[in-house]
Amino acid sequence: MARVAPRTGDAIFANVERVNAELFTLTYGAVVRQLLTDLEEVEEVNKQLDQMGYNIGIRLIDEFLAKSNVSRCNDFRETTDVIAKVGFKMFLGVTASVTNWDADGTCCSIVLEDNPLVDFVELPDNCQGLYYCNILSGVIRGALDMVSMKTEVTWLRDVLRGDDVFELQVKLLKHVPEEYPYKDDE
Amino acid sequence: MARVAPRTGDAIFANVERVNAELFTLTYGAVVRQLLTDLEEVEEVNKQLDQMGYNIGIRLIDEFLAKSNVSRCNDFRETTDVIAKVGFKMFLGVTASVTNWDADGTCCSIVLEDNPLVDFVELPDNCQGLYYCNILSGVIRGALDMVSMKTEVTWLRDVLRGDDVFELQVKLLKHVPEEYPYKDDE
Repeated sequence: MARVAPRTGDAIFANVERVNAELFTLTYGAVVRQLLTDLEEVEEVNKQLDQMGYNIGIRLIDEFLAKSNVSRCNDFRETTDVIAKVGFKMFLGVTASVTNWDADGTCCSIVLEDNPLVDFVELPDNCQGLYYCNILSGVIRGALDMVSMKTEVTWLRDVLRGDDVFELQVKLLKHVPEEYPYKDDE
Repeated sequence: MARVAPRTGDAIFANVERVNAELFTLTYGAVVRQLLTDLEEVEEVNKQLDQMGYNIGIRLIDEFLAKSNVSRCNDFRETTDVIAKVGFKMFLGVTASVTNWDADGTCCSIVLEDNPLVDFVELPDNCQGLYYCNILSGVIRGALDMVSMKTEVTWLRDVLRGDDVFELQVKLLKHVPEEYPYKDDE
């Protein structure tokens, strides 16, 4: 079978079904506001957003693999590169960069200058502990889980907290060998 | 000043910032699931979704007016037509049709055959009372409120409940005269 070349984030993004970014931004804002009302504790909201993101990530990975023609990544470094260059473009229409690698290649930062989630957003004083974009860290964690990589994803910088960019630290905890529910010769 | 022609939904949609529809769909699904967990009662979830939609609608109308070049609609009939043909296209990328007008032109149905919110969705048995897309009725109600039309928006048909299309009844309750916070000659 002829090998299909991986597609660029731009090419994929141009061809997938899309909705208006402002509708998405406002919908996400309504969600965060709702959670703040229902759960009261900012810490709880952070957890819920992360969990929602995780649930999205474990499904989004299928769309990603189906549409991107990305074949198996060789290592964590290649994987994070694909997330930043193809994944962010394909889903949010923005590109991210990967930086701050540690010596053994298991921890890096994904840096995002543009982030449609936070358009028009300002955190009120009583929400200073909120990780407004925590859904994103959950999505990455969930998607990586589905390709056998257990990770920890944490925010190092956040424009809503006064930083100049968004920086997500992605730390590889464990590479889980794939388990098949069947034997090869069955 | 030269009058600017209203733009078609397709033309606007081609030029606004967009995000992947599947990300939007999955995010919305995660929201509904979260509300079901937090609020337990399906009826409460319907209310919250409607309220979230309302809060989105009162802001989305600005983007709509700014991007669409639609000038003041003459009547309710023209308004619903613009929502169906331009609004739905501009935000969700789908077109709706307007039908079932009553004799005095204050009540009609917006019919939607394609609805990105419900891709991959099936309602479990314990959620049969859920209006999954209730955020949409809230958005329409909120947006119309901002252009001085108090409406009641209810679902008549719903694909998730076994109907062949989505049908939203929009009933004009009151046309509120605009109030200015200032006098014209000030």
